[in-house]
Amino acid sequence: MNFPSLVVNKQKALQNIKNMFDKTVRNNLELRPHFKTHQSHVIGNWFRDFGINAITVSSLKMAEYFTNDGWKNITIAFPVNILESSRLNKLASSIDLRVLVTDKEVLKRLDSELSQELGIYIELDPGYKRSGIPILDFDQIKEVRDLVLNASNLRFEGFYTHAGHSYKCRSRQEILSLSASILKDISHLKAVFNDPVCYGDTPSCSVMESFGDIDQISPGNFVFYDWTQFNIGSCSENDIAIAMYCPIVAKYPERNELVIHGGAVHFSKDSFIDEDVSPYYGVIAKKDNMSWSKHLPGNFLKSISQEHGIVKCTSDYFDKVEIGDVIPIIPIHSCLTADLMAEYYTLIGENIDHMNSRVFK
Amino acid sequence: MNFPSLVVNKQKALQNIKNMFDKTVRNNLELRPHFKTHQSHVIGNWFRDFGINAITVSSLKMAEYFTNDGWKNITIAFPVNILESSRLNKLASSIDLRVLVTDKEVLKRLDSELSQELGIYIELDPGYKRSGIPILDFDQIKEVRDLVLNASNLRFEGFYTHAGHSYKCRSRQEILSLSASILKDISHLKAVFNDPVCYGDTPSCSVMESFGDIDQISPGNFVFYDWTQFNIGSCSENDIAIAMYCPIVAKYPERNELVIHGGAVHFSKDSFIDEDVSPYYGVIAKKDNMSWSKHLPGNFLKSISQEHGIVKCTSDYFDKVEIGDVIPIIPIHSCLTADLMAEYYTLIGENIDHMNSRVFK
Repeated sequence: MNFPSLVVNKQKALQNIKNMFDKTVRNNLELRPHFKTHQSHVIGNWFRDFGINAITVSSLKMAEYFTNDGWKNITIAFPVNILESSRLNKLASSIDLRVLVTDKEVLKRLDSELSQELGIYIELDPGYKRSGIPILDFDQIKEVRDLVLNASNLRFEGFYTHAGHSYKCRSRQEILSLSASILKDISHLKAVFNDPVCYGDTPSCSVMESFGDIDQISPGNFVFYDWTQFNIGSCSENDIAIAMYCPIVAKYPERNELVIHGGAVHFSKDSFIDEDVSPYYGVIAKKDNMSWSKHLPGNFLKSISQEHGIVKCTSDYFDKVEIGDVIPIIPIHSCLTADLMAEYYTLIGENIDHMNSRVFK
Repeated sequence: MNFPSLVVNKQKALQNIKNMFDKTVRNNLELRPHFKTHQSHVIGNWFRDFGINAITVSSLKMAEYFTNDGWKNITIAFPVNILESSRLNKLASSIDLRVLVTDKEVLKRLDSELSQELGIYIELDPGYKRSGIPILDFDQIKEVRDLVLNASNLRFEGFYTHAGHSYKCRSRQEILSLSASILKDISHLKAVFNDPVCYGDTPSCSVMESFGDIDQISPGNFVFYDWTQFNIGSCSENDIAIAMYCPIVAKYPERNELVIHGGAVHFSKDSFIDEDVSPYYGVIAKKDNMSWSKHLPGNFLKSISQEHGIVKCTSDYFDKVEIGDVIPIIPIHSCLTADLMAEYYTLIGENIDHMNSRVFK
């Protein structure tokens, strides 16, 4: 294994999957996990072992990647790109493929350009303001729904809604309040249109214990979690199943800083912003044999450039580590970090695939 | 070509290379361009056509990638990672390989672990505070320099210095003032140690017209430039040789916003932060046949998630574009954007390699 490498604690990831799966069983929900976080055939199989057979992805390419591994029921949770209709048509001939739509003109074009039946979720916006018809705009919802129901090649699957604004919460309680308010809106929706509702986002799905009128959930990040999820109240620190192992390449005693190999092309430039603290890019965790345990307060990735990372240290930690040591760093956003690293290693050094796997290694 | 795709205007890139090359000829400097920006064999060859034969990279892996394309003189502009000594040793047996070192213990270990001669630049910090010995700390410099000179397998190549703090400037004049002050420090250094000095960073090298005691320069970003370089005064807008072509997938008239396919996995989360404006992730440019011309003021990439981008528009622009249109977006940071996209297209649709080229496309 060369460093930096992205290391996954398989046991923790399996436990995270189990926790979410058990919750869906308790609540009589269908779990359609989002695979945009791990983008891996091997990790996808960890879900299969729980009997999962329907998944969610964020691009057509990702749907093709998982179709290649035998997945037969895939939702592309992204507003359909009309320029891709021929690739969609081809994929829909071999699997139960579903996409998100909100626009009437797109629906008409899609229907006319397809020869295969395509599943349609109407995307509803629960207040995130990214995409979707506002969840209580029943007139617009009815118009679009009628179009889908009357189309020749479109099969109505229900509503898809992603509460991405839950990432702005800063506690479990805040997430619960937000979800409770969205659950009310979903009840109103269901009273008018009694169709399946799929609900996403890891923070809500991690903290909610009852799901009201929701039928399906499609969280993704929960397989690994990360520093952001821990800080906004989605998980405990012990649930974080991923860390970047970075070598120390220089030490600067006059400023208690380390230089590591580990920068923007490894972690992404996603940062965590907390009150009274400058944005930072990761936190240093304690090594624990081949794994890691708790983060070490006061030791964090202060800045990153393309390949360099600067770790701000306590004097105590600074004195304990040496150039050539490899230190575990908890990423801020596991999805983007995995997307950049394009492969994983388990604690015992097994290599795990990622969709972005590179020709030149 | 599928979208999003990263498009390079070859003519502009060649002109950017020519401008920098001509400047080095005028100033009797050696140009050792940094290839971390493009990471491409094909684009590397555009430099070869100017007679360039020595290059700079940011990782050992990148050095290996360019060695495979016949480059024989490569500096890894990164503090040497002692864990990689056997790979370094192997590579140094086939090319003139150079690395950056600041630490005495690392030098001793490196010397003892190598059997091949390795070129050493001592990295000096001109005030950026990322890595390197402070440029005026002559005692420390002398100690490290003596160690290199007396080592068995190390060949002293001079000093390497990267003024990364030039990116904090916000005008050509500010960059010139900063460089002038560093040039003075370099003169002091040269008066004591008359060794070659290699100087990096695109902003300084783009605006400086005389280079004092500098012998070599290794800028990288100038081949493409980007929105940041334009805004800090490194280049004109017309010099920017790269744009992301993104399809519009949804329109929201009530907020004058478009949703595009183009997110953090395409652009990176690097943002530009200007006075009085929230951080943003790209700017929309005017389409100009197969290329693009000026940016369209008031139209910018306001936020990005993994695959989604939200473009804030003027009413005028909003009314002109439709779902299914492909719009050119100038990236904030071309190095990170190229690193994520892992391939390029020219204006006439030729595919260009990138080190990160993927197995699954």
